[in-house]
Amino acid sequence: MLKVAICGGSGYTGIELLRILSHHPEVVVTAVTSEKSAGKSVSELFPHLYQYSNLLYEPLKAEAILEKADLFFMALPHGESQEKVDYFFRQGKKVIDLSADYRLRDAKIYEEWYNVPHKFQKTLKKAVFGLPELYRKEIAKASLIANPGCYPTSAILGLYPAIKNNLVDLSSIIINSVSGTSGAGRKSDVAFSFCEVNEGFKAYAIGTHRHTPEIEQEVSVLAGKNIKVNFTPHLAPFDRGILTTMYVRLTKKISTNQIVDVYKKAYAYEPFTKVLDEGRFPNVKHVRGTNVCVIGLTINMRTNTLIIVSAIDNLVKGASGQAVHNMNIMLGIDEKTALDTIALFP
Amino acid sequence: MLKVAICGGSGYTGIELLRILSHHPEVVVTAVTSEKSAGKSVSELFPHLYQYSNLLYEPLKAEAILEKADLFFMALPHGESQEKVDYFFRQGKKVIDLSADYRLRDAKIYEEWYNVPHKFQKTLKKAVFGLPELYRKEIAKASLIANPGCYPTSAILGLYPAIKNNLVDLSSIIINSVSGTSGAGRKSDVAFSFCEVNEGFKAYAIGTHRHTPEIEQEVSVLAGKNIKVNFTPHLAPFDRGILTTMYVRLTKKISTNQIVDVYKKAYAYEPFTKVLDEGRFPNVKHVRGTNVCVIGLTINMRTNTLIIVSAIDNLVKGASGQAVHNMNIMLGIDEKTALDTIALFP
Amino acid sequence: MLKVAICGGSGYTGIELLRILSHHPEVVVTAVTSEKSAGKSVSELFPHLYQYSNLLYEPLKAEAILEKADLFFMALPHGESQEKVDYFFRQGKKVIDLSADYRLRDAKIYEEWYNVPHKFQKTLKKAVFGLPELYRKEIAKASLIANPGCYPTSAILGLYPAIKNNLVDLSSIIINSVSGTSGAGRKSDVAFSFCEVNEGFKAYAIGTHRHTPEIEQEVSVLAGKNIKVNFTPHLAPFDRGILTTMYVRLTKKISTNQIVDVYKKAYAYEPFTKVLDEGRFPNVKHVRGTNVCVIGLTINMRTNTLIIVSAIDNLVKGASGQAVHNMNIMLGIDEKTALDTIALFP
Amino acid sequence: MLKVAICGGSGYTGIELLRILSHHPEVVVTAVTSEKSAGKSVSELFPHLYQYSNLLYEPLKAEAILEKADLFFMALPHGESQEKVDYFFRQGKKVIDLSADYRLRDAKIYEEWYNVPHKFQKTLKKAVFGLPELYRKEIAKASLIANPGCYPTSAILGLYPAIKNNLVDLSSIIINSVSGTSGAGRKSDVAFSFCEVNEGFKAYAIGTHRHTPEIEQEVSVLAGKNIKVNFTPHLAPFDRGILTTMYVRLTKKISTNQIVDVYKKAYAYEPFTKVLDEGRFPNVKHVRGTNVCVIGLTINMRTNTLIIVSAIDNLVKGASGQAVHNMNIMLGIDEKTALDTIALFP
Repeated sequence: MLKVAICGGSGYTGIELLRILSHHPEVVVTAVTSEKSAGKSVSELFPHLYQYSNLLYEPLKAEAILEKADLFFMALPHGESQEKVDYFFRQGKKVIDLSADYRLRDAKIYEEWYNVPHKFQKTLKKAVFGLPELYRKEIAKASLIANPGCYPTSAILGLYPAIKNNLVDLSSIIINSVSGTSGAGRKSDVAFSFCEVNEGFKAYAIGTHRHTPEIEQEVSVLAGKNIKVNFTPHLAPFDRGILTTMYVRLTKKISTNQIVDVYKKAYAYEPFTKVLDEGRFPNVKHVRGTNVCVIGLTINMRTNTLIIVSAIDNLVKGASGQAVHNMNIMLGIDEKTALDTIALFP
Repeated sequence: MLKVAICGGSGYTGIELLRILSHHPEVVVTAVTSEKSAGKSVSELFPHLYQYSNLLYEPLKAEAILEKADLFFMALPHGESQEKVDYFFRQGKKVIDLSADYRLRDAKIYEEWYNVPHKFQKTLKKAVFGLPELYRKEIAKASLIANPGCYPTSAILGLYPAIKNNLVDLSSIIINSVSGTSGAGRKSDVAFSFCEVNEGFKAYAIGTHRHTPEIEQEVSVLAGKNIKVNFTPHLAPFDRGILTTMYVRLTKKISTNQIVDVYKKAYAYEPFTKVLDEGRFPNVKHVRGTNVCVIGLTINMRTNTLIIVSAIDNLVKGASGQAVHNMNIMLGIDEKTALDTIALFP
Repeated sequence: MLKVAICGGSGYTGIELLRILSHHPEVVVTAVTSEKSAGKSVSELFPHLYQYSNLLYEPLKAEAILEKADLFFMALPHGESQEKVDYFFRQGKKVIDLSADYRLRDAKIYEEWYNVPHKFQKTLKKAVFGLPELYRKEIAKASLIANPGCYPTSAILGLYPAIKNNLVDLSSIIINSVSGTSGAGRKSDVAFSFCEVNEGFKAYAIGTHRHTPEIEQEVSVLAGKNIKVNFTPHLAPFDRGILTTMYVRLTKKISTNQIVDVYKKAYAYEPFTKVLDEGRFPNVKHVRGTNVCVIGLTINMRTNTLIIVSAIDNLVKGASGQAVHNMNIMLGIDEKTALDTIALFP
Repeated sequence: MLKVAICGGSGYTGIELLRILSHHPEVVVTAVTSEKSAGKSVSELFPHLYQYSNLLYEPLKAEAILEKADLFFMALPHGESQEKVDYFFRQGKKVIDLSADYRLRDAKIYEEWYNVPHKFQKTLKKAVFGLPELYRKEIAKASLIANPGCYPTSAILGLYPAIKNNLVDLSSIIINSVSGTSGAGRKSDVAFSFCEVNEGFKAYAIGTHRHTPEIEQEVSVLAGKNIKVNFTPHLAPFDRGILTTMYVRLTKKISTNQIVDVYKKAYAYEPFTKVLDEGRFPNVKHVRGTNVCVIGLTINMRTNTLIIVSAIDNLVKGASGQAVHNMNIMLGIDEKTALDTIALFP
């Protein structure tokens, strides 16, 4: 049994790791940290996790926790993760970082968007961007995974086959995303209180959201040149899910049926990425609680525009599920272990 | 007191007319029709409309209802409205048609998108597109108003000042809309049942929605040439509201502050269209129950793209409120009569 | 024009007062207080209240605000209201207190349930419990109104005719209430964040909620003796509304039809309390945004139990609307002024 | 591998069976019926069930389906189930009936509440009420299980220990239940459309709901005499879950702590019934997607009333999960097989 620790275990991604790992036959959670809730059991804070009544939150003291685990899931806020990740990594542990701290390969871009310097650039160079559909081989050999952001996961998977096959005017990429409210994390903030979010819908951080450079980094790698994108996130009154609607101008004449084929081929061997037949489109409700990304496609012939719609569960494929997927790849076990679930519908 | 009839009074736009007109000091509702509910009182069907306990639904017999009213609100399904509108109009009545039947000036385009021929093209020529911000003068003199669709209202108001001021690459218009579920109407359909919609989010009718030609018609008028747009509607789990996020490439260098000024000038004398200061964006929750359209703007300097976000209540500014606004203009009375309300928040 | 001030104007009851008073032809809001938001305009905090762009929040300095208004709505937290109410009252102002501080006539019971002493018992004696259906005459002559709590309003109106007519076993009263989340106020608290409340439902404060003694006080007055009740509140995932389901054993044989008559008679002249015909029951959705309390009744003949269901909007009839109703009575004007609205449905 | 068929497989309980059984290591679903959707695959109707792309709906022809399975889950509407259940049972198959047709032991009471005669009273006598906490031994030996209703499951489990221990005034039982909308099934009905249910809350079928005699039957067995109860269901705007709040007068002096002990003892060996410590109460959000019933307890000393709150997921413990639990018991395998899941939270 692999011993794993969860640093930052009282947020939504932390408890989602606990939920998923409870099904995992080859892993045991040996430690979970929280500064605020240190001393309390997981089930005291989260009654639905009654299976974890003997697991107590502890403060994150890196030296003390080091020997408790072989692999560390880091679910800390951006900026706070940097140093701990570096420490565990240098001590020879495997680390999967769910924060943004090791996702941007260029430390300058990180600093520009996150307003903090990156102090561990040597370690940063060792990090692998943990999107299995793009980096499976590198993940298998890595010790440090930068688990992708939720929006970038939905956007990059939606754009990848079209860009890889040179079908897209790279100057025209528009990414319009809608997220459920769990994406904001578990926090006391009137802006995310029930009465402010419910029956509402709004755009936010237009053109300035921190996931923008992450999307641009990966799209640029695929395109082989620097790409800038338009990315607009929206906040919606549901718990889980991201639906991303993307618009790209096509550089070739191609039918919807053909583009569906291109996508189906690209993801033919992927366990968690599904491409829908022509005429069908995804709904976040159909992926809730699962690690699946579903993609629907259509071409507007009148404007020669490809419209791509992708749906994920932001807490699973967009965070904790993808982290476990990465772990499974690192361990060389069946990738679907603990992740082969069906959406809770309705 | 002006006598008005509501044809098709048991759907959401019909009862919204009843709600709004109950505050109107110069109007009395003398007839309301419904085939299914004929003989029942309004308050029997809709207990919250207890003020209308003496108003009975009647079947829509054009001859019988003709003398009961001076002005007819037509809230019938598309296709069913055509003939009745023509009849009341030719009998010299004022007609405000909330269906799509008289919105498209070109009967061929109507036929192409709605799959029924337009049999009353002579009357069609008399119809004025009832968007007061664009056609106030024509509305004042008209006897037949084609009340705009909900999505087109949000899109056209969002695009109008930018196009009018020649700021936009007309080939690049992308309109991404999100609607609350009342937009689907009041009907028995498992697809709109609570458990299917709640906690879900999806795109639908991508590139094929019938509001597309309506948007294109008005945008083309503004641009002075034929424009095709990308329009994608989405269904969201809230009752009321449309948020439309639009992306257009700019043809000039201009700052966000300057574009905000352009929009503020364009709508300076409009009672129901509000332009937000730089850095603020609308939320459908802030317009619920009101006839207001709120617009927020930003320019993504990295891609030279203008992003416009507009919010309306689909049942008010997107339907019944705009219809009453049109009526007020036709009557020459204060445009805000019965419409000067504050959003119900939360 | 009567000048009114709202002390504590940035919570949900405060902004609901602003919404309602904006329709009021005989009142002008001259001051609104908030410690946190002092210096900001109302519309900066609440964009939907754009009509109030010139009204600035100010800190609550009693002496400074005294001359600005003739009537003070106090929407402060319990305990904080006591002293300010006493001050304005003693300075000869009219005061309507939406807190609990002057609702319990017995200062000992107040202290027992609220854990603070009541320091202004002389003023307490002058307060009138502002439930117009019970105390209209006293309200008309009063200068200090203790505006009832939301749960008590729904419970007392539901029980009043049955108790008054001696139909009820007074030892058997069970009050099961369900409230929308706005009842918790506008605050930063993870327990009321969207993701914790949405798709959830729970009971809380069973037998210990502070509205219990308020209900008992009024029920005891009606019964002419000391009554203890079972009161259980629940938190539900909607914004507004309280539905209270009450169970009382009958002391006489009586039919549902007869009890409906008893209730209809009791509320025959009430502008805001509606009794439904046999077989119909209220829905909070039908009273949203209105000052109406709707009551449905049935008798379970198999157990000789009367079940009473009442619905109100907790922010209107349960708070700010009732406060304005009380003000109208105090001013001797039409009671329905500014309150004669139709529910926003859907 | 046990072969099972699901008769009535396109409703919410049918697809919930498919979801749960997909995890079951000893079962294979060999047939699933639907009249309307015959010929379509499960995944065509329900995209989230993509694992079932080769399983086609077929019309329910009893003779044709007989040999396909060893055990039949019957998820047909009440009344329609009777005959098919009888047929499969007499052919020697194991049958678990999720309809109400075999729950009431007295055919006259069935007829009285369901308005259809029971034509298979001989088979009815063989049916075991499938509440494992009460009838585990009988279930183990049975061939025909009447799977309990959702409301009765929550009510009976909440009342059982108190009644069994003679703590309750049996004439005073009040059962106030609140259900999510999936309890109404998957159907085209405007009353359950999103805009009618969302932001609403109401009581329905007060004193007349068909689950009343089912609760009374089991409570009477426990009490050893005929009991009548007050049962009021409510409809709430969430997908899944039932919260039942029960009020019973105590016949003895007992503390909350003691009653918690009584309940903990009663359910000490139950895998799916959890009793909370004093001061804690359940939330339907904590049991979503699980087969767990959580119970919280308190005594109101002022009225000597025990208040019991139970929470279940109506589609799992209230239907399909309990059906699988019953199957596991019938098969003599680990009762938790396929049911040992953690709630999806948030």
